[in-house]
Amino acid sequence: MSIVPIIDVLKGCVPSDSEVTVQGWVRTCRDSKAGICFLSVYDGSCFHSLQAVIKNTLINYQKDILRLTTGCSVSVTGFIVESLGRGQCYEIQAKAVKVFGLVDDPDTYPMAAKHHSMEYLREVAHLRPRTNLIGAMTRVRHTLARSIHKFMDEQGFLWISTPLITTSNTEGSGEMFRVSTLDLENLPRTPVGEINYNKDFFGKETFLTVSGQLNGESYACALSKIYTFGPIFRAENSNTSRHLAEFWMVEPEVAFATLSDITIFAEAMLKYVFQIILTERADDMQFFANRINKEVINRLKKIINADFIQLDYTEAIEILKSCNYVFENPVSWGMNLSSEHERYLVETHFKVPVIVKNYPKDIKPFYMRINNDGKTVAAMDLLVPGIGEIIGGSQREERLNQLDQRLEEIGLNKENYWWYRDLRRYGTVPHSGFGLGFERLIAYITGIKNIRDVIPFPRSPRNANF
Amino acid sequence: MSIVPIIDVLKGCVPSDSEVTVQGWVRTCRDSKAGICFLSVYDGSCFHSLQAVIKNTLINYQKDILRLTTGCSVSVTGFIVESLGRGQCYEIQAKAVKVFGLVDDPDTYPMAAKHHSMEYLREVAHLRPRTNLIGAMTRVRHTLARSIHKFMDEQGFLWISTPLITTSNTEGSGEMFRVSTLDLENLPRTPVGEINYNKDFFGKETFLTVSGQLNGESYACALSKIYTFGPIFRAENSNTSRHLAEFWMVEPEVAFATLSDITIFAEAMLKYVFQIILTERADDMQFFANRINKEVINRLKKIINADFIQLDYTEAIEILKSCNYVFENPVSWGMNLSSEHERYLVETHFKVPVIVKNYPKDIKPFYMRINNDGKTVAAMDLLVPGIGEIIGGSQREERLNQLDQRLEEIGLNKENYWWYRDLRRYGTVPHSGFGLGFERLIAYITGIKNIRDVIPFPRSPRNANF
Repeated sequence: MSIVPIIDVLKGCVPSDSEVTVQGWVRTCRDSKAGICFLSVYDGSCFHSLQAVIKNTLINYQKDILRLTTGCSVSVTGFIVESLGRGQCYEIQAKAVKVFGLVDDPDTYPMAAKHHSMEYLREVAHLRPRTNLIGAMTRVRHTLARSIHKFMDEQGFLWISTPLITTSNTEGSGEMFRVSTLDLENLPRTPVGEINYNKDFFGKETFLTVSGQLNGESYACALSKIYTFGPIFRAENSNTSRHLAEFWMVEPEVAFATLSDITIFAEAMLKYVFQIILTERADDMQFFANRINKEVINRLKKIINADFIQLDYTEAIEILKSCNYVFENPVSWGMNLSSEHERYLVETHFKVPVIVKNYPKDIKPFYMRINNDGKTVAAMDLLVPGIGEIIGGSQREERLNQLDQRLEEIGLNKENYWWYRDLRRYGTVPHSGFGLGFERLIAYITGIKNIRDVIPFPRSPRNANF
Repeated sequence: MSIVPIIDVLKGCVPSDSEVTVQGWVRTCRDSKAGICFLSVYDGSCFHSLQAVIKNTLINYQKDILRLTTGCSVSVTGFIVESLGRGQCYEIQAKAVKVFGLVDDPDTYPMAAKHHSMEYLREVAHLRPRTNLIGAMTRVRHTLARSIHKFMDEQGFLWISTPLITTSNTEGSGEMFRVSTLDLENLPRTPVGEINYNKDFFGKETFLTVSGQLNGESYACALSKIYTFGPIFRAENSNTSRHLAEFWMVEPEVAFATLSDITIFAEAMLKYVFQIILTERADDMQFFANRINKEVINRLKKIINADFIQLDYTEAIEILKSCNYVFENPVSWGMNLSSEHERYLVETHFKVPVIVKNYPKDIKPFYMRINNDGKTVAAMDLLVPGIGEIIGGSQREERLNQLDQRLEEIGLNKENYWWYRDLRRYGTVPHSGFGLGFERLIAYITGIKNIRDVIPFPRSPRNANF
């Protein structure tokens, strides 16, 4: 007699009238006056539970079954039969039920079968995967990761892990976490009284990385197509629903690719992964549509079928200036687009995803390729309705002279970039890449508003619990 | 005219006599007196380069082609034809060659086409992916990651990302990196003069994780089958060929699974991924067999076909005691097996992979399930010939009383494990899991001796360069 996941039963992969065992946790428990107990058993393999029908003729009915409450763990052996009940195709008629673990004091069980606020669930992050919401999110998260890996592999990309502990600072941002083994009560000092990082684990000041891009470029400039999929850290003191101190990022980098190539690639990737989510996670997506945001399925479908608009930053500014809409942040060439501008473009003006290209160089990092106009760089942001920017990328400056000039303009010490510059000295190639915030994409797909609810154990200012 | 990866040409996917473009870097360049240049072009898509045959009738032959050296980047457009040369099936007859980037001073090019020591290559880690060795390693690494994800997905496992920044310490080990944003020159103090971590980013002392297991258990105890695949950190001051300060780990965790279930699973996983490596990375594996260790292909094949031996620690000790072999570390019940003992068991005694089970509780962490004998725990180590331990796992202690007793014995404060204990209070289930060091497995597969050469940018004591 085999143990089967509930998804196989509900999909009809288990022949009717065959005897199997399912294992999981009780979602709800209802005993009828007719001496039958209906147990809804969940094992995480899919959104739905399986109903177990248990007769009071079972040997441990009084002793065990009548004590079952939400959250108890059980194994149910019996026959799979077609169900006459509403909303389910199959049920299991129990021959034997084994109880593994009861719930300590069911009245105070933190995951009792009732509505819990998202804030409360974060306080019990170790138990919240037992909810429908976090369960569905976790399956979508898994399938999204899998489909990204699959897309990359099919396109000939190699997965690269770039280092998390680093001495360099890609974006020139100051908001990094220090990594150290120095004893804070006995900091070693140099003769002139400065902290002596030479005594630290790595012999230097080290931080957690904010991007794998520069390292990724080194591999793209050798193996052509690579991507990173790994954690990234930002010590930004932002207590918002869009920021995490620790999150996952996907960063493809492609040798011989122009900005145009990479925008086509980004569009294809989004459509590919959205299609897989809709197909393989239909039950979870239906839940999100019912409970979180009724648009989540439709908007993915629309994106899959849309032709993305591409336009220059300069054109975008013209549209925003001439649209008669009053923005909080006034519009002028040279400024960064803020969320309200991005959303106006995608939600009001174009109503499809928009790729804005060729931004002013002064609002973009040093590594982006300067255009012939001398004022803009070959950057792109991909904006989607409902959230705004979801992907940001660029063609990288592959010409050593231009790169050095940019480093100097910005006041970065080119000696610190010696190895990055080497990539331009030895067989340099045009190359492009982008960054996709994995959690932001999950939030978009599921409609979950706060990014802390799309990662198992969120890290944010004043919170590193669990 | 389409741009194609070299793997497609060499696999015969491009029809003969069709016109295509390939892009990549020059491996070698040889011009014959007959006015023909033979260019070996590599793009990272597979182990081998494609030979381009370039006639001196090309318009830029003098200006560009004759200046090409190892490492230059080119695009070659021409017809794919069957090759008469030795060791290659196809070549490209160039109609046009475009040079993207030359090499600054070819005489000092760090990646000149000659033998480089592994130590030297680590000093130019930004360029070493251009070598045959690191290229092949990177493709194996990619395929290994992909095959692990694929195996897990097919078995119904969900990928979970567990937090990297943590306040807890799974193994009770002291060797962790501190993560902080405190200003070291102005450390905040409490009224009694201690460092005030309440002022730190997370409001507490935080570290980089040494394992995702405890967090993984929380998800397995809700969704049944999960695995982590993410980075792990150890601030161990070990300058050996087997240690990294930052490495990747795969940690499956399975609800309702016993130690026996998880050993069967581990064996199946290894066989599955080895088979994919041998099939999909045959060219790279042949290179490793030729250059690094002639056994690498054979030993994977042997493992795929082997029945793994399972035996108890106590039996293993008996074998080691009675074998007449003189070990550096004398053998007695209660000790940890060291590498020499493990290798004797797999290489001399059994000659197939061995799973040693049920170790003395005193040499294992608190979370392992105590056996009925009261002396041993349901732990397992999977040992393979040539390297020793490659997987370590256990059934977890799911009984609250026993867990509390262990925490007390070891002197750990059970309040710190409140959420881990909750998993035992609410619907506890037997569950098991293991940890697989991703880099150790790559080292084993490829035969590469030093673990610093199987990760793009290694981190070790006094080294966080690039």
